[in-house]
Amino acid sequence: MCTDASALVEAIRSLAVRGAPLLGIAGAYGVALAAARGFDVAEAARALEEARPTAVNLSVGVRRAQDAHQAELARTGDPTAAAVAALAAARALHQEDAEASARMAAHGLALLDELLPGGGHRVLTHCNSGSLVSGGEGTAFAVALAAHREGRLRRLWVDETRPLLQGARLTAYEAARTGMAYTLLTDNAAGSLFAAGDVDAVLIGADRIAADGSVANKVGSYPLAVLARYHHVPFIVVAPVTTVDPGTPDGASIEVEQRPGFEVTEVAAPHVPVTGAGGGIPVAPLGTQAYNPAFDVTPPELVTAIVTEEGVVSPVTAEALAELCARARGAALG
Amino acid sequence: MCTDASALVEAIRSLAVRGAPLLGIAGAYGVALAAARGFDVAEAARALEEARPTAVNLSVGVRRAQDAHQAELARTGDPTAAAVAALAAARALHQEDAEASARMAAHGLALLDELLPGGGHRVLTHCNSGSLVSGGEGTAFAVALAAHREGRLRRLWVDETRPLLQGARLTAYEAARTGMAYTLLTDNAAGSLFAAGDVDAVLIGADRIAADGSVANKVGSYPLAVLARYHHVPFIVVAPVTTVDPGTPDGASIEVEQRPGFEVTEVAAPHVPVTGAGGGIPVAPLGTQAYNPAFDVTPPELVTAIVTEEGVVSPVTAEALAELCARARGAALG
Repeated sequence: MCTDASALVEAIRSLAVRGAPLLGIAGAYGVALAAARGFDVAEAARALEEARPTAVNLSVGVRRAQDAHQAELARTGDPTAAAVAALAAARALHQEDAEASARMAAHGLALLDELLPGGGHRVLTHCNSGSLVSGGEGTAFAVALAAHREGRLRRLWVDETRPLLQGARLTAYEAARTGMAYTLLTDNAAGSLFAAGDVDAVLIGADRIAADGSVANKVGSYPLAVLARYHHVPFIVVAPVTTVDPGTPDGASIEVEQRPGFEVTEVAAPHVPVTGAGGGIPVAPLGTQAYNPAFDVTPPELVTAIVTEEGVVSPVTAEALAELCARARGAALG
Repeated sequence: MCTDASALVEAIRSLAVRGAPLLGIAGAYGVALAAARGFDVAEAARALEEARPTAVNLSVGVRRAQDAHQAELARTGDPTAAAVAALAAARALHQEDAEASARMAAHGLALLDELLPGGGHRVLTHCNSGSLVSGGEGTAFAVALAAHREGRLRRLWVDETRPLLQGARLTAYEAARTGMAYTLLTDNAAGSLFAAGDVDAVLIGADRIAADGSVANKVGSYPLAVLARYHHVPFIVVAPVTTVDPGTPDGASIEVEQRPGFEVTEVAAPHVPVTGAGGGIPVAPLGTQAYNPAFDVTPPELVTAIVTEEGVVSPVTAEALAELCARARGAALG
């Protein structure tokens, strides 16, 4: 349990709290918490935003609560009222996220049915994008779940998602408890499924979408996009509009978080005795350096469609995304 | 230590003994062992051949020792002389494999230098293909090692190679002990290296090469071939001529071994207390099914070159491979 913002920063860094939409909600609640406890709100907001540099939803959530706090403080001069306003902003974001999940699921399922008229979808997903990362049922996973509920999901292929195994640990759990037909695989084995013609669509979430439509998501997404293109399989990104960052012009401008090498050089598992510096058991020779980017970037030309709560963007272009964002702002103001 | 052929079969199944060339040598010694101990040689040969269905070198090695045994038995009627002949055949194969490694390394380095005239090669490899799988210095790894010795290897990128982590456990060890500059990565992160332009060539081994040039190798090789093609990076297969199986016409005819799901659903590491059915710690929910092919198949059009001890085949065509095999047979007879 996180009783102050610095504990939350640590929870975000260590990925105990993770997933793009949930990071936004957590960031907003973190600011509200700092305000309620009388900490320096600006400092807490900065620390929270910096906990994961790639996730744009995190800073969107943080800023929304911070803006509400500042506005109320300027209006009333009352720190308690400002803290209440920050909490209200966090709760509103939480609620909106749940509603956005449901709308993304509906738009995504309609797109799947349009692209794959036969039904019986065999969907491959990577990392975790269900209710564990969302105020609602998630992003990409929510689309698969909607297909499952309508009897149109034949199988969910679950990439284990090294190094932290979010697919094996989290997505397999969400698939099992919702009664889906699912199969786990090493990320390596996805190629064999494509080659055998056993993947009808790839569905993934996103941590940041640049203005040009470049998609930052969990490392391993880009190789799937290349495989999907090579095999003429739709590659579909599902994310709330807040994931689109007009301030990031293109893929090259996305800062990709580099994580510690021990996530790769050591094996971590519950009840494993700690012997390595990272808290796991070394599997590689001592002193081995690892390249461990948390995310990769898929260029827009490899993305078949971006599904948001405000509708589907396909083909993915800067103009279409800008129009979507304008429409979403209009809806928020209206 | 394997003191009879059935222990060796188990060691091959569990991958304690693994890697295409070494499997051939082990298979030949296994037959020699069965003969020396007075077991049924035909039965031992069959069990050894069936221990790993995809690895053609295994059956080539087994048959060579078995043929030597049969021929001597037919000639002399003396089981002891026949056992000596089987052992001599195994030793000859072992010696030839060491010499073949050296020749593959020389051919491979010449090819690298031709394809990448600037030197400073940054080579990506998958699984393990060094002296741990060979009578000599291996196949793909031997080429990287030759480049390193000539001062022309800038970096070896080592895919960890899930599920059994042969890259992290074995290739990283071989790279470290030979003093190479190397970096370990999850198989997922290879895409980011390609996208950044940090891979100059991919070098892998092979477990079986069909007559049309389709290459069966450790699962995860095919996705690398697709990435390499997308990024215009040479994808080079290094394997002894015995890996080419004229009896397998094409990729679709290659039987791909499916391995137990617990290799994916459980984490295994030294000193880890056993709680799962497969001897590791479950990371996925109980009852999770896994898709776990040991190998994948890369079609010839994605293979830039096949490097053998008899020379380089590029472009990879059925005709060029048939000619290579004929030349190798001629060399063996001469």
